Amino acid sequence: MTKNSAPDLQDQFANKSQAWSARFSEPVSDLVKRYTASVHFDKRLAHFDIDGSLAHAEMLASIGIISEGDRISIERGMGRIREEIDAGGFMWSLDLEDVHLNIEKRLVELIGDAGKRLHTGRSRNDQVATDIRLWLRNEIDVCLGLLRDLRRKLAELALKHAATILPGFTHLQVAQPVTFGHHLLAYAEMFGRDAERLADCRKRVNRLPLGAAALAGTSYPIDRERVARTLGFDGVCRNSLDAVSDRDFAIEFCAAAALIMTHISRLSEELVLWMSPRVGFIDLADRFCTGSSIMPQKKNPDVPELARGKTGRVNGHLVALLTLMKGQPLAYNKDNQEDKEGLFDSADTIRDTLTIFVDLVGGIRVKSEAMRAAALQGFATATDLADYLVKKGLPFRDAHETVAHVVRMCDERGCDLADLTLEELKGINDLVEDDVFDVLTLEGSVASRKHVGGTAPERVKEEAQRVLDETAG
Amino acid sequence: MTKNSAPDLQDQFANKSQAWSARFSEPVSDLVKRYTASVHFDKRLAHFDIDGSLAHAEMLASIGIISEGDRISIERGMGRIREEIDAGGFMWSLDLEDVHLNIEKRLVELIGDAGKRLHTGRSRNDQVATDIRLWLRNEIDVCLGLLRDLRRKLAELALKHAATILPGFTHLQVAQPVTFGHHLLAYAEMFGRDAERLADCRKRVNRLPLGAAALAGTSYPIDRERVARTLGFDGVCRNSLDAVSDRDFAIEFCAAAALIMTHISRLSEELVLWMSPRVGFIDLADRFCTGSSIMPQKKNPDVPELARGKTGRVNGHLVALLTLMKGQPLAYNKDNQEDKEGLFDSADTIRDTLTIFVDLVGGIRVKSEAMRAAALQGFATATDLADYLVKKGLPFRDAHETVAHVVRMCDERGCDLADLTLEELKGINDLVEDDVFDVLTLEGSVASRKHVGGTAPERVKEEAQRVLDETAG
Amino acid sequence: MTKNSAPDLQDQFANKSQAWSARFSEPVSDLVKRYTASVHFDKRLAHFDIDGSLAHAEMLASIGIISEGDRISIERGMGRIREEIDAGGFMWSLDLEDVHLNIEKRLVELIGDAGKRLHTGRSRNDQVATDIRLWLRNEIDVCLGLLRDLRRKLAELALKHAATILPGFTHLQVAQPVTFGHHLLAYAEMFGRDAERLADCRKRVNRLPLGAAALAGTSYPIDRERVARTLGFDGVCRNSLDAVSDRDFAIEFCAAAALIMTHISRLSEELVLWMSPRVGFIDLADRFCTGSSIMPQKKNPDVPELARGKTGRVNGHLVALLTLMKGQPLAYNKDNQEDKEGLFDSADTIRDTLTIFVDLVGGIRVKSEAMRAAALQGFATATDLADYLVKKGLPFRDAHETVAHVVRMCDERGCDLADLTLEELKGINDLVEDDVFDVLTLEGSVASRKHVGGTAPERVKEEAQRVLDETAG
Amino acid sequence: MTKNSAPDLQDQFANKSQAWSARFSEPVSDLVKRYTASVHFDKRLAHFDIDGSLAHAEMLASIGIISEGDRISIERGMGRIREEIDAGGFMWSLDLEDVHLNIEKRLVELIGDAGKRLHTGRSRNDQVATDIRLWLRNEIDVCLGLLRDLRRKLAELALKHAATILPGFTHLQVAQPVTFGHHLLAYAEMFGRDAERLADCRKRVNRLPLGAAALAGTSYPIDRERVARTLGFDGVCRNSLDAVSDRDFAIEFCAAAALIMTHISRLSEELVLWMSPRVGFIDLADRFCTGSSIMPQKKNPDVPELARGKTGRVNGHLVALLTLMKGQPLAYNKDNQEDKEGLFDSADTIRDTLTIFVDLVGGIRVKSEAMRAAALQGFATATDLADYLVKKGLPFRDAHETVAHVVRMCDERGCDLADLTLEELKGINDLVEDDVFDVLTLEGSVASRKHVGGTAPERVKEEAQRVLDETAG
Repeated sequence: MTKNSAPDLQDQFANKSQAWSARFSEPVSDLVKRYTASVHFDKRLAHFDIDGSLAHAEMLASIGIISEGDRISIERGMGRIREEIDAGGFMWSLDLEDVHLNIEKRLVELIGDAGKRLHTGRSRNDQVATDIRLWLRNEIDVCLGLLRDLRRKLAELALKHAATILPGFTHLQVAQPVTFGHHLLAYAEMFGRDAERLADCRKRVNRLPLGAAALAGTSYPIDRERVARTLGFDGVCRNSLDAVSDRDFAIEFCAAAALIMTHISRLSEELVLWMSPRVGFIDLADRFCTGSSIMPQKKNPDVPELARGKTGRVNGHLVALLTLMKGQPLAYNKDNQEDKEGLFDSADTIRDTLTIFVDLVGGIRVKSEAMRAAALQGFATATDLADYLVKKGLPFRDAHETVAHVVRMCDERGCDLADLTLEELKGINDLVEDDVFDVLTLEGSVASRKHVGGTAPERVKEEAQRVLDETAG
Repeated sequence: MTKNSAPDLQDQFANKSQAWSARFSEPVSDLVKRYTASVHFDKRLAHFDIDGSLAHAEMLASIGIISEGDRISIERGMGRIREEIDAGGFMWSLDLEDVHLNIEKRLVELIGDAGKRLHTGRSRNDQVATDIRLWLRNEIDVCLGLLRDLRRKLAELALKHAATILPGFTHLQVAQPVTFGHHLLAYAEMFGRDAERLADCRKRVNRLPLGAAALAGTSYPIDRERVARTLGFDGVCRNSLDAVSDRDFAIEFCAAAALIMTHISRLSEELVLWMSPRVGFIDLADRFCTGSSIMPQKKNPDVPELARGKTGRVNGHLVALLTLMKGQPLAYNKDNQEDKEGLFDSADTIRDTLTIFVDLVGGIRVKSEAMRAAALQGFATATDLADYLVKKGLPFRDAHETVAHVVRMCDERGCDLADLTLEELKGINDLVEDDVFDVLTLEGSVASRKHVGGTAPERVKEEAQRVLDETAG
Repeated sequence: MTKNSAPDLQDQFANKSQAWSARFSEPVSDLVKRYTASVHFDKRLAHFDIDGSLAHAEMLASIGIISEGDRISIERGMGRIREEIDAGGFMWSLDLEDVHLNIEKRLVELIGDAGKRLHTGRSRNDQVATDIRLWLRNEIDVCLGLLRDLRRKLAELALKHAATILPGFTHLQVAQPVTFGHHLLAYAEMFGRDAERLADCRKRVNRLPLGAAALAGTSYPIDRERVARTLGFDGVCRNSLDAVSDRDFAIEFCAAAALIMTHISRLSEELVLWMSPRVGFIDLADRFCTGSSIMPQKKNPDVPELARGKTGRVNGHLVALLTLMKGQPLAYNKDNQEDKEGLFDSADTIRDTLTIFVDLVGGIRVKSEAMRAAALQGFATATDLADYLVKKGLPFRDAHETVAHVVRMCDERGCDLADLTLEELKGINDLVEDDVFDVLTLEGSVASRKHVGGTAPERVKEEAQRVLDETAG
Repeated sequence: MTKNSAPDLQDQFANKSQAWSARFSEPVSDLVKRYTASVHFDKRLAHFDIDGSLAHAEMLASIGIISEGDRISIERGMGRIREEIDAGGFMWSLDLEDVHLNIEKRLVELIGDAGKRLHTGRSRNDQVATDIRLWLRNEIDVCLGLLRDLRRKLAELALKHAATILPGFTHLQVAQPVTFGHHLLAYAEMFGRDAERLADCRKRVNRLPLGAAALAGTSYPIDRERVARTLGFDGVCRNSLDAVSDRDFAIEFCAAAALIMTHISRLSEELVLWMSPRVGFIDLADRFCTGSSIMPQKKNPDVPELARGKTGRVNGHLVALLTLMKGQPLAYNKDNQEDKEGLFDSADTIRDTLTIFVDLVGGIRVKSEAMRAAALQGFATATDLADYLVKKGLPFRDAHETVAHVVRMCDERGCDLADLTLEELKGINDLVEDDVFDVLTLEGSVASRKHVGGTAPERVKEEAQRVLDETAG
């Protein structure tokens, strides 16, 4: 080695397939290479990696660590690499482990020494943390848009069915009549909270780790706030050890995703149930269903079933990430490489599922008659009768017990509450007058629940409109 | 049954041990009673249940559903019940299933018909949801205080050790020298994010479900905003079906708790490691340690070990709750009763653990010499040498490879970088001058990392002070 | 301290509240004491702890480490302690941390120096591992009995309903007619596998860790096989480090328990569904149901709902234990104390749930007419028609498509397959002859599926009898 | 449609991109197609799918459902398809959803009507269950081989280091001296149990679901035992509803895999710790390590770190599958399609990890001097001194306390137990004689623990040999 002439970088990268660096006496085995490489999944971060590198180069130039000429070369080289990636012509190499080294090596091929200067003042540890955050911020924004769309679809359908009556269930037993619009808006609330949670999570995602270098920061006088501004971060991570080892944001996102899928699973359960022939409340458009390879009559609600099943996948990724981070000493450990696949798959799952549900909700065909028929089963207005008696002066607990007797009587006779005569009702309690029938009808029952949060059609319309207003634009 | 005279309420409650209501023909079996009862764990909600009942009664009186006299009776009766509970004299009965019926029955015993009127316009479904939210809001506030205390303790110790040097590790290999204060502040960051997350979660906890009744709202003209104000809620749940079935807040809290415990597990792992004799960086006060029943010399760091183990418990509760809610149709199902024990235990675990860690962090005895000795092992300043060469003009990648050669040489000779002579260093690359030794010292290395987030003592002092300012008062 | 006179043991135990041993300079703080104590939950191991101690003492005496007199004293003392525990008079002390020290201290109080000799050649590390295994072996045996009982109840009901027809569902859509007996036997299969798994798990539970002492074995010439025989273990753990740190058996048990609860959750889901008024296939006895505090008509299937919810709890404990053990270095760490509560609760949950389901299955009231009516909906015999055409010579794929056309036609007309005339059927495919109606009836359909595993009544009877034979005696 | 001429099968398959069957009025949307298709991951089942089809065809021919000519055609067609798949020339189509339809369509293309007859008497529901079981059985067999290899490597290294002494740790504090061979054999025990569990799981995997058809069996007189024999199954699933809906075997396998990874994570934790410079017990071959992009001196134990991290992934898949199956009504639901990816990834993870660990264990370089030096720290023979006193007549509890005093004294003086003079030791307790020094040496300590399971070199050699014998051939 002649003085002042370092080993050629091409060699350094090439050496990967021989030994990691001059420090190593044997190459990484092929099996290890495959086991430890991440390029087959982290290459999806490529554009974010380039964004981060450009912002870093811009900052290095601004403080004079690299020349303006170098910066321009880097920009040009990266532009070329982007094109190669988009065109599918970029040659990803397992020998180069990950997205970062693959891109950096190509950069050096394209622009020479300026490329070698790019990695000044940073490390792959802070680089990958930056890339994931940029990627995740984008995913969150996409999901926020999808949640908004889904809430709109629910609200539109709710507005249309503000007065469509079906039985409200508790314990899958008929409880009280509710409106279908009201039922749909319960999901609009859930997805609304999901959006709040993602927005809260975004605040913690959107902080810049770059500048933490390997773990301790760097001896270069870097300007992290500048990089943060360039990349649209809200601020910088304030501790370098934390910056490279923190994966809270990934876990928090997966927890939020698990709740989204939990809500999807509940909606799916109901869709499947409602489409079952014994219930028959709705039909799903054929494009969301498939048939059977053996039973010619089948039309199966595949999409909600599969979505319900995918809840498990996201719960699993959450557990994987929590297990991963448990008991890890500071700062960066290779374990952390395992953060990506579960996170990617969680994001993909909610993105695909929300996209498909936006369309699916729009394709629900409501069978109002079946809903109404079901609401007439199961003494849905028994509570209304009890409330009626209370308003006439009976303490609630006594009214409740009185109506339980009436229900038992009807059950034995095989009739509904509304089928009893005024005389019979008076026979049970002489507080009953002929206005009792107003409360025993389905329409009377739902109309009376008109306070905030209640199921009355007028209230449902208001709430649906509120959701539409919130999600407008 | 004479007309206008309902079955006695005492009977209704008494009947529980015979049959649920007039609707039922056989009593719940003893086994079922034990299996389905919740009073043995939900009685801890008693005070919150009473708070909720009083706010409900106040509202009922304000709109004329119950008389002012009834309200006063209820207030008096509840006051008496509170005293009985606090004094340990309240007779909890398994026959009465849960905290709600136990208290209500006692109220009726104490004040008669006014007690029977309390349950007007509400159901146990919205009542229990309200109780848990009130309880959880309180737990969050306690934990926020504890997180603040813990961050203060970390910052105080960091301030004291802003210049104490130990090796920073990545992959548990010596990476670069860092200051112990900097290392501690990484945890202050983590617990800071935990506090943010709890505060975000609190917003979603602090909404009033009461008024949703069983699932559909009620036909009484209730004033939910009034109840919300009385109880200090930020607003009301806007959909009754969602209000009684939503357990997002419990899951979100458990997810936040799991992250708190994940951070505790990482700190614990390090404390255990640091206290191991081969490392010997710290000693924990004897009051956090125990001995062995067989090995007389042992002093074991029981507290951090147990805390690390308790991570599993909270992760488990999170999974339990997610599993619980998966695929549940609306609205309330009995499954939901399973929401409490895991939630209670999660809150207890983080409360106890944080409390004990506030004390434990204060009791860490730092062994600075051992830390320093360790930092001198493992070529911790190799990166500084590479950076030095870059500043002299070598591209970073080349400098990296050059230093790798030097490290290998030192390794073979059994010496450190700082042990090489200037001549030897110049022999490697003639860019080296005698200012090289400034960067090869530990102090020089840490001092140079002085940007935001870096490990330089001056920066650590600033950051520690920032945390102290944030957590003051 | 006079020579040859050790500090008094009473003092040693008493010192706990001051300092762990002479090695310690301050006592464990009260908070730490509460945090680290396990006696409030591990005292349920007391009888197993005593069993283990007696077997240990018997072995120590047999090899002359303690005298026969000492052994007799220990036996006597332990007999007394058992009585105190059973009578509720034993004074459990938090200061003494755990079940082991509590019992040992009491033993020394009762019998003096002989009690102090009992702990020779063992440690709490191997002692607690032995206790848990003894306890768990017993729990497994209880659960095996309950699984047998449950399978019997299912088989008895299946035998009774070997010919009762209901629609078999896939995707909750009507698929093909099946018999209710066949449906019930699917669960008998699941619980049969659960029993196999528990039996397999038992083999690994039933190995003796005692003799591993703290981690390395002991310098006393102990006879571990003798202890194993006394306690009914199948063999000894063959590595002391593994013996004290292994918790595989707890995890394996929880995994088996999670599958049991998964099966229970599926059965529960169906029971809840079947009891929903729109389906109405069964009724559960009132003793498994409860009512509503607000809706007088309600009869809710609380038991299956709650059981379904409890699945989450057991899944959670499994995750907790896996998280606990992840990355633990050998040998024993305090983390392991966290193994018990989740394990205890898992065992309690499956024990209580299985017990209650044995009774519940016996209390199912089958509504055969509703089942039959449902089977006549949804073209359940479409596959039979396709198979008919195949037997007449059409390739299966073509027959499938042909029948799909017929179904669509019926759907548009609002009739069932059996409602078509022979002419109409022949119009579709002239292979159809008048024997087609045999396969279009429900009875014909189920009777034809008579191979092993099929739904034909004769086959169901055979299988039910097989289960009854397997579970007899 | 002319009579007796069914719609062309090509059309049926082609129609997929238009509508599922004649029953459907619109095609599945492209988004839905991607969402619900499984061919991109289930194509790895292709060879097992073909094996199952050939066995099915052979049986159909044997009972005369298809002709011998058809059977031969099917065999020929499938042979061709196998070649196409192996050569990479098979055209997988997303439109055809899954591996089954892709292969079947190609078969019909190749051999015409005979191909259409293959699906007689089966359904995709039992077909996919059969495929997964065949695939999983093979994976289990591969893993059993790898576990055997890994145990051999551990035993070989243990045999070599049967007398190499290092400190045994509990609570990561020095406990007692142990031999490195003994420590390694603890892992041989763990992986031995893993093999037992996989073998137990294999019994439940190896049962044939084929013949269950969609859910109810088939009206063809199929011979399921024949198919079972052909495919090497131990028996047939005895209930068709269970056969198509059971995924216990996948969950049981994942639970076993999670324990394997838990053991790997513990070994990895120790390898990482042992390679940390402060400990320095071992070195890993360079081929298992990588360097740093910024720190030129780094040699990181990537493989054990990453393996430790991968524990999370497998735990996550276990949770995903348990979540998936929770509360699913019988029989097959589309949710079940989610069973595959997690199962595949779990199997791949343990296969890759075990493969790499077989090599890695062989590449451990033991630094015996560092181990020995560490064992001389921390009063590792304190228990031996206590045992010595017991053998001289002191009750164990008193001996323990006496030694605690001695340790404290040494600690204050900064010396080890072996550094005390006989006079000093006698001063503590006059039972001490000059044979005390035999037990205070490391060699004396380990040699004395020679019972089954103990750490004595002679015992370790025996046990290592036992493992080698067990795993031979």
